[in-house]
Amino acid sequence: MEKIKRNVRIALLSRMLASSPGKLFSLSQCAEEMGCAKSSLSEDIAILKDIFTLHGLGKIETLIGTQGGIIYHPELSPQGVEELVEQLCQLVNHPERVLPGGFLYLTDLVGNPELMSRVGLFFAQLFRDLNLDAILTVETKGIPIAMMTARMLGLPLVIVRNDSRISEGTSIGISYLSGTQKRLVTMSLPKRALAKNSRLVFIDDFLRRGGTAHGILDLVAEFESVCLGMGFLIDIAGEDKLVQRYFSLLTLEMLDSEARRLIVSKGRHQL
Amino acid sequence: MEKIKRNVRIALLSRMLASSPGKLFSLSQCAEEMGCAKSSLSEDIAILKDIFTLHGLGKIETLIGTQGGIIYHPELSPQGVEELVEQLCQLVNHPERVLPGGFLYLTDLVGNPELMSRVGLFFAQLFRDLNLDAILTVETKGIPIAMMTARMLGLPLVIVRNDSRISEGTSIGISYLSGTQKRLVTMSLPKRALAKNSRLVFIDDFLRRGGTAHGILDLVAEFESVCLGMGFLIDIAGEDKLVQRYFSLLTLEMLDSEARRLIVSKGRHQL
Repeated sequence: MEKIKRNVRIALLSRMLASSPGKLFSLSQCAEEMGCAKSSLSEDIAILKDIFTLHGLGKIETLIGTQGGIIYHPELSPQGVEELVEQLCQLVNHPERVLPGGFLYLTDLVGNPELMSRVGLFFAQLFRDLNLDAILTVETKGIPIAMMTARMLGLPLVIVRNDSRISEGTSIGISYLSGTQKRLVTMSLPKRALAKNSRLVFIDDFLRRGGTAHGILDLVAEFESVCLGMGFLIDIAGEDKLVQRYFSLLTLEMLDSEARRLIVSKGRHQL
Repeated sequence: MEKIKRNVRIALLSRMLASSPGKLFSLSQCAEEMGCAKSSLSEDIAILKDIFTLHGLGKIETLIGTQGGIIYHPELSPQGVEELVEQLCQLVNHPERVLPGGFLYLTDLVGNPELMSRVGLFFAQLFRDLNLDAILTVETKGIPIAMMTARMLGLPLVIVRNDSRISEGTSIGISYLSGTQKRLVTMSLPKRALAKNSRLVFIDDFLRRGGTAHGILDLVAEFESVCLGMGFLIDIAGEDKLVQRYFSLLTLEMLDSEARRLIVSKGRHQL
């Protein structure tokens, strides 16, 4: 009987942790919900830890003390990363994705929750040890990617707006030269959206010259906070960038709008 | 030995399904990855089904045939819905959220992945049986909610832009009278973003008079598609709406910008 109960508990734990990666679950609360002693629960967790480790599914972290509990940090195996990059390359490498003005149509990819979950996990893994307070993005196409990254880390998502007319209370705005729109644009963030001394990472879909990314650094500085990393779904090769340290899943090696040709390769997975 | 293997398989299945709700997993592929016969896997699935059902965690659906496999449809129990609404009410019912012009500051809630996962699940559950092709939203604050809804249903997210300057290829745009901005505004969607005859649901953060929601109906009609439902994080009580059939998690009963007072209650959970 105890045997059966244990198996059920482990199945339930597995579901609970996988449903909310990065979330701290209190041991006492879990034990109460499972109707078992904390010691039994600790044994269950040890078993599940081994299963996850053995199958390359990530770590279950145990925090001790009164604020203690368990947190699941899912992992993409090196093979999982390779498969993700390969799949993204195949999806992006299509002439129909080439838009006038050197743009790429990525909207459908960004709106694919299963794909973006894995992209989010890729970034979460890179930035996990930075002791972050929030994930930062700028509207619009970066939002789904950043949301999935935030979800994997159990962190809040903060969305910078590129329209200062928005009514979200007192905001801090900065102007920057957008490479995409080739003009001075504004982006802003409500004052209450970010506490002083926040540790952040910036996630977006596309890195061209880095005008927006550089603007983000200025904006973050206005909040007396720090941006510790940047991750993009795709960056452009060769152009002199305004930001130097960043990760990308893919690199756009060449794009010829006239001829509707493009070459996409593996991005910058190391700094 | 077989006993241990089964338990490990069930823990792995539980994690896999919970990580990708709404996704169809092929039985053959699962059996191969688990290194077991399909018959054993079917028994594992039956056990896990019972565990999930018994604990009110949702259904595991088995599709038979060559395209067959299993799909996990997570569920919010009635108690889970009540807790979610209660938590949202408490979070929203703060005078500091009242912004000039009758607006509410919701940005932090929308950027909370764990909270939005449950909000997404609430909507997913309402719209699960509509045989949908995609979830529709309009930038900006609706995106995280709609993304989480799409994730729970394993469906693509389609984002309507309210800026026609965006370069996403040939787009269809419509103009509508925005109640919020009290002026004629435009929203647009790339032609390739939506196939003809798509079955859709529209998800957004806020329903005031419904100018945007009504515009969405017009836009969807331009794509020869159909919007079968609408869900909002919060709607405003009393105002004569341009759309009649919708769900909301919360209702803003009263908001006095001058006095910084508001009353929030349970929203419209039935049509």
